[in-house]
Amino acid sequence: MAEHSVTMEATLKALLDNKKYSTLKDILVTMNGADIAAVLEEINEEKITLLFRLLPKELAAETFVEMDPEIQELLIKGFSDSELRQILDELFVDDAADIVEEMPANVVKRILAQADPQMRKEINEILKYPENSAGSIMTTEYISLRPKMTVEEAFVRIRRLATDRETIYTCYVTEDRKLLGVVTLKDLLLANDDDLVSSVMDENVIAVHTFDDREEIAQLLSKYNFLALPVTDTDDRMVGIITFDDAMDVIEEETTEDIERMAAMLPSEKEYLRSGVLDVYKQRIPWLMLLMISATFTGMIISGFENALAGMVVLTAFIPMLMDTGGNSGSQAAVTIIRSLSLGEVEFKDIAQVVWKEIRTALLCGATLAVACFGKIMLVDHLLLRNDSVTMLVALVVCLALFVTVLFAKVIGCSLPMLAHKLGFDPAVMSSPFITTIVDALSLLVYFGLAKGVLGL
Amino acid sequence: MAEHSVTMEATLKALLDNKKYSTLKDILVTMNGADIAAVLEEINEEKITLLFRLLPKELAAETFVEMDPEIQELLIKGFSDSELRQILDELFVDDAADIVEEMPANVVKRILAQADPQMRKEINEILKYPENSAGSIMTTEYISLRPKMTVEEAFVRIRRLATDRETIYTCYVTEDRKLLGVVTLKDLLLANDDDLVSSVMDENVIAVHTFDDREEIAQLLSKYNFLALPVTDTDDRMVGIITFDDAMDVIEEETTEDIERMAAMLPSEKEYLRSGVLDVYKQRIPWLMLLMISATFTGMIISGFENALAGMVVLTAFIPMLMDTGGNSGSQAAVTIIRSLSLGEVEFKDIAQVVWKEIRTALLCGATLAVACFGKIMLVDHLLLRNDSVTMLVALVVCLALFVTVLFAKVIGCSLPMLAHKLGFDPAVMSSPFITTIVDALSLLVYFGLAKGVLGL
Repeated sequence: MAEHSVTMEATLKALLDNKKYSTLKDILVTMNGADIAAVLEEINEEKITLLFRLLPKELAAETFVEMDPEIQELLIKGFSDSELRQILDELFVDDAADIVEEMPANVVKRILAQADPQMRKEINEILKYPENSAGSIMTTEYISLRPKMTVEEAFVRIRRLATDRETIYTCYVTEDRKLLGVVTLKDLLLANDDDLVSSVMDENVIAVHTFDDREEIAQLLSKYNFLALPVTDTDDRMVGIITFDDAMDVIEEETTEDIERMAAMLPSEKEYLRSGVLDVYKQRIPWLMLLMISATFTGMIISGFENALAGMVVLTAFIPMLMDTGGNSGSQAAVTIIRSLSLGEVEFKDIAQVVWKEIRTALLCGATLAVACFGKIMLVDHLLLRNDSVTMLVALVVCLALFVTVLFAKVIGCSLPMLAHKLGFDPAVMSSPFITTIVDALSLLVYFGLAKGVLGL
Repeated sequence: MAEHSVTMEATLKALLDNKKYSTLKDILVTMNGADIAAVLEEINEEKITLLFRLLPKELAAETFVEMDPEIQELLIKGFSDSELRQILDELFVDDAADIVEEMPANVVKRILAQADPQMRKEINEILKYPENSAGSIMTTEYISLRPKMTVEEAFVRIRRLATDRETIYTCYVTEDRKLLGVVTLKDLLLANDDDLVSSVMDENVIAVHTFDDREEIAQLLSKYNFLALPVTDTDDRMVGIITFDDAMDVIEEETTEDIERMAAMLPSEKEYLRSGVLDVYKQRIPWLMLLMISATFTGMIISGFENALAGMVVLTAFIPMLMDTGGNSGSQAAVTIIRSLSLGEVEFKDIAQVVWKEIRTALLCGATLAVACFGKIMLVDHLLLRNDSVTMLVALVVCLALFVTVLFAKVIGCSLPMLAHKLGFDPAVMSSPFITTIVDALSLLVYFGLAKGVLGL
């Protein structure tokens, strides 16, 4: 697929350079909005508007939605008022609201001025919901039916509304805007013409509220394999729907955010290749700085044992191994729990079960690693490298510290994300780097403590 | 939603204990397959079959598909042949194939014996494709239309086939099994009864091949917001479709696998709470062991500088900070690139652009951290803690080493995943813990090298 777009891009560029506009047009109408958008983003800024004007209006709208905000802004600035109005007419309300959210104030003003009054009202409706809520990603363009309609009447209504509704395959049965039931186009197609909609509809509707978290809703849609979910407001009146494609986008975005947080970054605003170096820097430096400063404590612990260490420098050689193993053990537990929390597989009430499972896993992992480490030290450092300062007692101290570190790491790694979740923070922040810093300090305390006790430093 | 299922579960359990079967049945028919499956997984094994038998057959099939393989196996073993046949009749072929893949050989034999010959053939068809291919997740149950049919004839055919097709909203126009076009139910609904299907269909079909990677296909479906994608075989004949709900499951599974690999774990087989301690142990110990052993090199580097260190133990105190900052910097770059690769936002051909961006980011991050670190050491260690061995020269060595480490970490962090991807490995394996180990060794070499040069140890 990727190769396909690359050659396509070259062909289109060549046609554009040679001003073969009618050939260009013929090719563009066979393409998909997402692909045209990808091509547009690669060509010269001054030619974007030129190429865009070749598109028939429905395809133009479809392409417009798929482009980066920067290019949308560029295009809007180049549009005449009537061009802008034409595009807006073709957009679904939720897409229009998404675009408005990304634009600077003067562009927003122009968009709202050109949108028809009904659309303006609906865009404002969507914009008033908080950023990560169901309301902010819903569309108000769904098909509603009345319970007393016949199936035949329902089809007349569906045919009439089809072109500007986001989906016609799931219809919602309402009365006074109260949601009574849901009926699929398949149900209607299999029913008799004179059946009542109320007799065909399913009354067990799963609905979400405008203020529900958009990630939870996306998971819900994925769990039930629904095409769309109805959204009701605080008075239980139906106000919109969320479709599977929006849910897929939400899941992708939220997962990227989680992954970035787990790797100690702030969430990114745009794709990596499109971000400037300064954007990437701003995304990464805060946590690097914070974690560097907090490593001061680890340094202070080592300084505290400086005299002891001076007498037995060999102990230093095992610090990286201890710290890395602790960090890895902790992040394994943390990442497992963070992912399970975000998929809804684990909840705070499971904390005892989780901690108990991690303790047992840690005992197994810790014992295996300690035995292997003991063998390695005695074989490699003691026998092979003939490092005389590595005695059996030193090996014992290292392995015991390793065992305790793994145990601490797993318990802290699994419980911190759950606590964060309970307190309403994003558990992904409590991830590897943060936990590593805590485990580092603990493991050094255990190591030096054991060294003092056993080796009598 | 979660609270809802919890109370529901308690109610159902109570009804089951009190043998109120007809009330139970009344409640169950209002519920969704996914929710009933969740309840079934929480109750006593001997009662599962009892409760399951209360379900009407369509709902029974829907519930069956949503359950864990262990419980499916338990149920199948309890079924009579005719019960098994009834469930199989209601299943979609791709779901049946998924179940067959999870079952032990004797259960598979029974399933194939009870499936009708057509289904048996289709299950075998799907099972012959490699695990992560489009063929393995497709369903053969789609609606095909002929180009010469009228829209009216098309509707007759769709109505007749509707009940056992996975989707009727996207239909495929074929002749001699060659894919000619795609037509949505919406297109058909808006056309005239006597229009020909060939005049309504869209000839620009995006199709995938049976051996294409399932993750790429899922991304494609998400990119184009399609309900379904057609799958063609090596002779370009249409053999099946992949629907959005399967794509959502694939994305979820593949993302979880990526996240697990990034945190140095083998991919898990089942949900965390359902995995035994031994399963979790087996998933985690291989990488912990490998990374522990490879930390030997870091240890050897420190041992090599043992005499130098003995003379200036203060240098040890900064080792954890250097290692952690290097590890964090590297994993930030690695995780960003791994995610971009899996979303298809970055490809191998972008490597020069990526490395150049990381170098500039690293220079900015490294300089900021080095300056902050210098300030911190001089203020806290030197002035506040009055640690006399922390001279300005020591601070200089530490900060210079920090700067170089960040640079190395970012370059290695971004390039290793891209190389792995190019060589056909999963880039997620080249992630934080692996990169940390390499960066650890490099940063210590730089640190001690600088210490020797500047401080003349």
